[in-house]
Amino acid sequence: MPDLHASRRDALRTVLNESGVDALLVTDLLNVRYLTGFTGSNAALLVHGDGESRTLFCTDGRYTTQAAAEVPDLERVIERESAAALLARAAGDAAAHRRTGFESQHVSVEAHAEFTRVADGIELTRAPGLVEQLRLIKDETEIEALRMACAAADRALASLLEHGGIRPGRTELEVARDLENRMLDHGSSGPSFESIVAAGPNSAIPHHRPTSRPLHAGDFVKLDFGATVDGYHSDMTRTVVLGRPADWQADLYELVRRAQQTGLEASLAGREVADVDRAARRVIEQGGHGEEFSHGLGHGVGLEVHEAPRLAMNVAGTLSVGMTVTVEPGVYLAGRGGVRIEDTLVVRDADPELLTLSSKELVVV
Amino acid sequence: MPDLHASRRDALRTVLNESGVDALLVTDLLNVRYLTGFTGSNAALLVHGDGESRTLFCTDGRYTTQAAAEVPDLERVIERESAAALLARAAGDAAAHRRTGFESQHVSVEAHAEFTRVADGIELTRAPGLVEQLRLIKDETEIEALRMACAAADRALASLLEHGGIRPGRTELEVARDLENRMLDHGSSGPSFESIVAAGPNSAIPHHRPTSRPLHAGDFVKLDFGATVDGYHSDMTRTVVLGRPADWQADLYELVRRAQQTGLEASLAGREVADVDRAARRVIEQGGHGEEFSHGLGHGVGLEVHEAPRLAMNVAGTLSVGMTVTVEPGVYLAGRGGVRIEDTLVVRDADPELLTLSSKELVVV
Repeated sequence: MPDLHASRRDALRTVLNESGVDALLVTDLLNVRYLTGFTGSNAALLVHGDGESRTLFCTDGRYTTQAAAEVPDLERVIERESAAALLARAAGDAAAHRRTGFESQHVSVEAHAEFTRVADGIELTRAPGLVEQLRLIKDETEIEALRMACAAADRALASLLEHGGIRPGRTELEVARDLENRMLDHGSSGPSFESIVAAGPNSAIPHHRPTSRPLHAGDFVKLDFGATVDGYHSDMTRTVVLGRPADWQADLYELVRRAQQTGLEASLAGREVADVDRAARRVIEQGGHGEEFSHGLGHGVGLEVHEAPRLAMNVAGTLSVGMTVTVEPGVYLAGRGGVRIEDTLVVRDADPELLTLSSKELVVV
Repeated sequence: MPDLHASRRDALRTVLNESGVDALLVTDLLNVRYLTGFTGSNAALLVHGDGESRTLFCTDGRYTTQAAAEVPDLERVIERESAAALLARAAGDAAAHRRTGFESQHVSVEAHAEFTRVADGIELTRAPGLVEQLRLIKDETEIEALRMACAAADRALASLLEHGGIRPGRTELEVARDLENRMLDHGSSGPSFESIVAAGPNSAIPHHRPTSRPLHAGDFVKLDFGATVDGYHSDMTRTVVLGRPADWQADLYELVRRAQQTGLEASLAGREVADVDRAARRVIEQGGHGEEFSHGLGHGVGLEVHEAPRLAMNVAGTLSVGMTVTVEPGVYLAGRGGVRIEDTLVVRDADPELLTLSSKELVVV
């Protein structure tokens, strides 16, 4: 989709012109992918503020064919040291690249020293986060990829439950693998992160890694997982119970469910991210478990499974239309069990659009 | 295994004392893992040249329990901004941290600016690659993990072949997924990189990504894949043929096989890495396909699937006992097909020790 990527480069050009740099050297591979569609493992892009004709893409010889297919609309340079190669080109036309920005939150101190050596006659300028700023607001192509990634996760969970995949005797690892295979069946190119399957007391560990512990009757089973589609990640958590829930389990689940619903309803354009966190957190505090909700409410998702904005206390910023974020309160009772419920949503003009659609009633398996 | 990690920190301390820095701030997560055993996603380590009592580990609140289990032998600080937290501690005892090194090939320009702000009164010194230098030479614990990772890949391939998993009509994607599942069955915690399954003309693309193209009789099928065990990666390539090989296929296979054998035999302690590449490359050049061997001969494997040393022309350095490297010549005939054969081996006192043991006879399926 060259038009899509060209229009993203146009948007970046506006930012460049506003920030007074002649060009930006893009070296973060996700940012290169966002701006060009290139999916290989070595690339750099020099976006010039003047327009497409001065904009250069570089990758190495392994990707000559792939780059021609994925980036047909830009001049392509083939060199192993892609960033240095583009800076050397820029230095050859120093008048047009007097101030060239670089992604200083991604470029290492050593790489920067090398850039400085190569970019003779050019003023290299720290320009962190310019592309990330654009990526904060998803376009409809991105939202469609996220929608498909979320649907793959929804369908995998439905199929897992339907086939009795969560049952006493199975290990956390077996359930995780089964779930990941079902996501592949439903269009995922791979898990968007290491799936969390945490049963019984393990469900009280927020970032538990699946083990060979078998599931037992009476366990909470927390599943936090996601699918990848076209490079975009979904992220969802559901907590189910094996057998009839004890009273404390039903109460804890209901509390987290209400907090999550409150967080969803607060996810409106213009709201402070800290406010959204606070709205959900207050429900849990009023339920007496504030201390046991030990993490932020959520985070952005897109080409990265964790990206801006963070929804947390002490974070500045507001939600805008087109942001995609998770809302994932949890309460963790050490040694007993925990509940987390998480959706991925799009901030819209009015109510948010949920992308993960699995039921949030307490599922008893 | 605290003793193992403590002895690695001791080895690092010798390097620190030699290079005249008081301490090293380790922020690369693989380096932290190598030196402590910690496997979480946020950590920093400040190794002091004086000894363990001044050495500090930091992670955030999600990992309090995990850090206590994995890093019982070091003082642990719990803070979200782990690197800055340790530098602030160091600044509080500036006399003992006058020259503190940082991993300048990993630390971004922005992070460095933040470090400088925090590390008041400390001279932050670029100290790239110190831990990587230690990681070049694997200890027997690492080699055992690599051996298990290679065995998982070997067994998965044997089981795939035994069950007729490579057959006409199956797609590249189906074969890749089947292979990855069989690696999980044999102890892998996940593929060590995106598996390559490339059939027919696709086998001529060195880094092909599996597609929905079905396998056909007469195809070369190139499989490049690996397993992960305890964080260590295996890497192996085999090329099979579907049905009776055509003469050009038998000839091409034999040529690459001879080049690979030559490369293995040249992988001796004390040999220049460029020489090892040259030895294998000469066989392919003499076979008339020098131009179609378009990449280096191999690379180190360990906590990263691609790490130092690179075995390639124009690379300086020699092999040493305990290095683990791949040897993977290939010839790619555009539009027809290609062959690559790859093993992972350990450089030993005498002959190298092969870790990947699958047959290299041309397998006809």
